[in-house]
Amino acid sequence: MNVVSTLDPRNGQRRETHLRETSDAELESLATLAATAGQWLADLGRSGRARLLDAVADALDADRADLVATADSETGLGLARLDAELTRSATQFRMFADVLRDGGYLEAAIDHAAETVLGPAPDVRRMLVPLGAVAVFGASNFPFAFSVAGGDTASALAAGCPVIAKAHPSHPLTSHASSQAIRRAVRDMDGPDGVLTVVYGEEAGRSLVRHPAIRAAALTGSVGAARAIQAAIDERTDPIPLYGELSSVNPIVVLPSAAAERGGRIAEGLFASFTGSGGQLCTKPGLAFIPASPVGDQLVDALREQVAAAAGVVLLNERIQDAFLAEEAALEKAGARVLARPRIAAADGLTVAPVLLEVDLTELSATLADECFGPAMVVVRYRQAGDLDAALAVVPPSLTGAIHAGPDDDRATVRRLADLLAARSGRLVFDGYPTGVRVSWAQHHGGPWPSTNSLHTSVGATSIRRFLRPLAWQGAPDWLLPEELRDGFTGIPRRVDGLLDPGRP
Amino acid sequence: MNVVSTLDPRNGQRRETHLRETSDAELESLATLAATAGQWLADLGRSGRARLLDAVADALDADRADLVATADSETGLGLARLDAELTRSATQFRMFADVLRDGGYLEAAIDHAAETVLGPAPDVRRMLVPLGAVAVFGASNFPFAFSVAGGDTASALAAGCPVIAKAHPSHPLTSHASSQAIRRAVRDMDGPDGVLTVVYGEEAGRSLVRHPAIRAAALTGSVGAARAIQAAIDERTDPIPLYGELSSVNPIVVLPSAAAERGGRIAEGLFASFTGSGGQLCTKPGLAFIPASPVGDQLVDALREQVAAAAGVVLLNERIQDAFLAEEAALEKAGARVLARPRIAAADGLTVAPVLLEVDLTELSATLADECFGPAMVVVRYRQAGDLDAALAVVPPSLTGAIHAGPDDDRATVRRLADLLAARSGRLVFDGYPTGVRVSWAQHHGGPWPSTNSLHTSVGATSIRRFLRPLAWQGAPDWLLPEELRDGFTGIPRRVDGLLDPGRP
Repeated sequence: MNVVSTLDPRNGQRRETHLRETSDAELESLATLAATAGQWLADLGRSGRARLLDAVADALDADRADLVATADSETGLGLARLDAELTRSATQFRMFADVLRDGGYLEAAIDHAAETVLGPAPDVRRMLVPLGAVAVFGASNFPFAFSVAGGDTASALAAGCPVIAKAHPSHPLTSHASSQAIRRAVRDMDGPDGVLTVVYGEEAGRSLVRHPAIRAAALTGSVGAARAIQAAIDERTDPIPLYGELSSVNPIVVLPSAAAERGGRIAEGLFASFTGSGGQLCTKPGLAFIPASPVGDQLVDALREQVAAAAGVVLLNERIQDAFLAEEAALEKAGARVLARPRIAAADGLTVAPVLLEVDLTELSATLADECFGPAMVVVRYRQAGDLDAALAVVPPSLTGAIHAGPDDDRATVRRLADLLAARSGRLVFDGYPTGVRVSWAQHHGGPWPSTNSLHTSVGATSIRRFLRPLAWQGAPDWLLPEELRDGFTGIPRRVDGLLDPGRP
Repeated sequence: MNVVSTLDPRNGQRRETHLRETSDAELESLATLAATAGQWLADLGRSGRARLLDAVADALDADRADLVATADSETGLGLARLDAELTRSATQFRMFADVLRDGGYLEAAIDHAAETVLGPAPDVRRMLVPLGAVAVFGASNFPFAFSVAGGDTASALAAGCPVIAKAHPSHPLTSHASSQAIRRAVRDMDGPDGVLTVVYGEEAGRSLVRHPAIRAAALTGSVGAARAIQAAIDERTDPIPLYGELSSVNPIVVLPSAAAERGGRIAEGLFASFTGSGGQLCTKPGLAFIPASPVGDQLVDALREQVAAAAGVVLLNERIQDAFLAEEAALEKAGARVLARPRIAAADGLTVAPVLLEVDLTELSATLADECFGPAMVVVRYRQAGDLDAALAVVPPSLTGAIHAGPDDDRATVRRLADLLAARSGRLVFDGYPTGVRVSWAQHHGGPWPSTNSLHTSVGATSIRRFLRPLAWQGAPDWLLPEELRDGFTGIPRRVDGLLDPGRP
């Protein structure tokens, strides 16, 4: 099979690794390992899996220096950002350990046998059970938090689903090192290797989702990648869910009073949000609606100065670089004027200049409102807040929509914009920036197509729901029920005869 | 446009109705009405929508005599069954009124701003919001409970989603009359017509799911119907979820001690379960595994006597009759021996004879394990419980799997069979029958493909989840939040900073 290579984006050098693309025969044996692992994860129970997830977090922490250095050499994202991202990964595993200990995610419910208006009704009990082995596709732009050691893996293992991860070609060595840390934690608990395995190569990714043992797939990636994976899934006789977190423009509206009150701070915030991590974030703001007024001019001037003084940024791989340069050219061709694009030293590796562009709201078109993955942002100048309604309808539905309001912006306007953005996004951000997605119970990272292809989140406690299905027991003997569904069990929240019992955890 | 006709299955007579197939132009105006209705449903709030659902239930009850008579003339299901089904429909609306008053379905969660290991984190709040207008496809076999006035409509309206229902061609007049009752309840609350509208005709059904205003579709029907609807959905640029409840064989295993202890009662139960409603239930048991032993023989003999003495049953429409006769012939061709099939009077309308067939477990094949929609059941005779494992793997995944055990059947066997059936179904039934799906909080009516194409239920409180999506608010001002997400609100269960607060309803 083909050797897997890795690229140092800082110098553009590609070199061979010790890894090989995964053959169909190897995938077959990984699927067999996963079946055994599924039983082991089930036997661990919630508390055992919570211990496993904590141990995985500890293993990632223990390998921190090596993991961060490896990821830096493959992504050019920088040690500070990668160190923080690894903390985020470990935090995700620890959060799902808490989710397991809480047990509310099981949605346990008991309806005792009863006489009803529809006649005698049997005892029915319901909770969520794991789907089986699942496929996790690593993302280019988060070598830890949305890859082998990412939130998809953490939530799937928490659910009790073994994971076969497809390594992103931008960071095969990081993927391998991450899997080694996780597998060490599993082995330390006498667990089998099939709890987490990794496949390499595009064809292996397609074979993976075609494999009968795989019961769901999760992807953070492009619409194109999602289409390719869906096409492979469509070859199955039994459909499986694909949870895709895809493409997002993340419009930000700055209202006049906000620009007047804190235009300088907003300029700093916008600059950091669209250039951080090389602008290679699904939550990067691609469009900022700024008033066409003196306070708006001041904000844009401040933003332009920061961009003009910025250094070049290293992109993750050739495909992203090519796409960024093409999309940037398309923005200019569609009428966007370049406000700032610093000169950078003759291109070293995959380095590009950040760019700030501007159009008048009347010029806004579908092309200008398309996602440009990388350090580019288009400032859209508007005259009146009332003009924004039609403009926002041109922006594709996104993961997020943001509004900055000041003391003199009227509530009716804010509410109308919030309603518009709510219909077209999954997270409304007020007086802030969409990047920096909090890892927490209430988080939702999703949105209408094309930002995702499903109604689920890929960040936060409820992302575990993707890997679970309901199962009901009717008239089951007590000894056969999962302990969480037995009478008298009080360890988790349950709905009993329609009433929520929070339990005594 | 074409006139809609209706069939009396008792005499096979087809006649024209006052209804017409829906044109694309008419659909366009229904979509516009639905948009207005969505705002009205949102403005009602949870308590207002609960009042609406109670009023709909009352309206169905008020029109009971007319609705039941109309449905009987179109379906031949009989007044008693249809009267009970209408009670079920009304009960579903009332249950979702309770679900709304409880509010737990919103999955409300609040994470206050905090210092975290990942740095300062913003205030994030999440709850579920309605998807928008949805399409509901009526089922042939439940003119009330899974049609225009069915659980899909009840759960969608509860969620806050206007419904455009596609009437099943087997009962257009019942569909129309049901919609009139619902719309009267809406009008009595000064609501708009677009809350619930109905389209007629196959082409209108396809246009409906292609319409940009439709955000999800629900279907109880065949795999073929689901494929046709999915093909229409695939023509959209934005994918929408299709929640299909499709095809199910519902195997029942009778263990030796159960047969010995209560074979006569089980024979009665099996007979009622596979012939009730003409066997036209998605939960009809199609395969019964019975011991090849003297007690098994006694059970089968008792069953055979009941079938032999049974009357003919009226099927719902020509397509179901044709399919039933073809599938029954296929069972015989595949080696099933007819144990009983009463002679019935020269076929009046769509009347057929119930049929009981038998095979030895060693003869079981994919053809014999296929769903036969109608009053047919195949008895599969087995020698040892250990032989069942391989046999159950041949049965397609189903909505349900049932086990009858007696005092002398060992727990290890019961557990092994339960695990096997759990992996291949959505509801495990013990010492009972899969038909008669309880309407309650803990119910789950779903299962792996081909019994459904999704991980959701179409019966019970959680079926509302199909028509909701998560939305997060970050740093939102208190006045802009939904009341359920404001600090200090205690009317519903919420998760606050990770801890479940059951609220004070």
